[in-house]
Amino acid sequence: MLKNIGKVVGLYPMPVTIVGTEIDGIINWINIAHVGIVGNDCMMLSMGKVHHSNIGIRKNKTLSVSLINQDMVEAADYVGLVSGKKANKADVFDYFKGDLEGAPMIKNAPLTMECEVVDVYETEYHEQFIIRPVNTFVQEELLDEDGKIDFVKLSPVLFEMQKRRYLSVGDQISDCWSVGNNYSK
Amino acid sequence: MLKNIGKVVGLYPMPVTIVGTEIDGIINWINIAHVGIVGNDCMMLSMGKVHHSNIGIRKNKTLSVSLINQDMVEAADYVGLVSGKKANKADVFDYFKGDLEGAPMIKNAPLTMECEVVDVYETEYHEQFIIRPVNTFVQEELLDEDGKIDFVKLSPVLFEMQKRRYLSVGDQISDCWSVGNNYSK
Repeated sequence: MLKNIGKVVGLYPMPVTIVGTEIDGIINWINIAHVGIVGNDCMMLSMGKVHHSNIGIRKNKTLSVSLINQDMVEAADYVGLVSGKKANKADVFDYFKGDLEGAPMIKNAPLTMECEVVDVYETEYHEQFIIRPVNTFVQEELLDEDGKIDFVKLSPVLFEMQKRRYLSVGDQISDCWSVGNNYSK
Repeated sequence: MLKNIGKVVGLYPMPVTIVGTEIDGIINWINIAHVGIVGNDCMMLSMGKVHHSNIGIRKNKTLSVSLINQDMVEAADYVGLVSGKKANKADVFDYFKGDLEGAPMIKNAPLTMECEVVDVYETEYHEQFIIRPVNTFVQEELLDEDGKIDFVKLSPVLFEMQKRRYLSVGDQISDCWSVGNNYSK
């Protein structure tokens, strides 16, 4: 039986990301899971305007986005709890730099993308950064024989807001864009 | 060792949704997994402008968004494969109506939301519908004792684009906004 629980955003779980930025020469990390995919080549990060990270993103028009594995959960949660306004979080993750300034990437992340900001969709309290990956780095053992990312193996940590938990990815259910051919009412 | 695989959107998996609309009095369903969360109270659906569903959404400024469980995978994939321009898909899911016109909701979905369109963020080939839930319906047995949605129990089907697969949700890893207090370098 369906129960009406009111105006609840029920679109979970979402992949947890760590966003890497640079503000006044200091590297900063934040945990962002209100994210999305825009078209076929862009992503969206919904970030409260008050965040310290937003200062760097607005200025540099660059950032990095990393997925996390279970070993990174404590550190990932920490950079979401403590603001870069109050603490220097630069050394929480070992990082490397790619082609872009202001987009430090996490060395041990299963997947990390250096991204450019192509637009900002603004709402009252949030900036939605519309971003495009310039380079995507994946741990080699998480690619299959065709060079495709195996997201079951990668097993990115997911987030849900109702019970405020991190969840894991399970198994493959089926292929898509084919299993529907078996459909009959 | 990290490998650069180029400009790949690696932000997966994402929850699969079925979007319910009405076009010229005919109910239509489409499978959309390029989605996102905007701020604390809105969601985003990224939908190619050519889709039949978009006609109804533009006109009515309403739609429904349902999560799916594993029993719904074939039907969900089917409504993504076949356009409402060519086939009447009205009877693929049993539906009910809420407060809004043009937003039929799936009776057997684990979770379904009737939504109003608050804005459209347009890119070259896509309309990103920014939507707000008006009512969210959840199968009662998927709520915990506090009335919160249990997303592990709900186990929404997820989508990833690299190997084009539907994936399941796994288990709880930890609470969030607390486990980070244990962090030390």
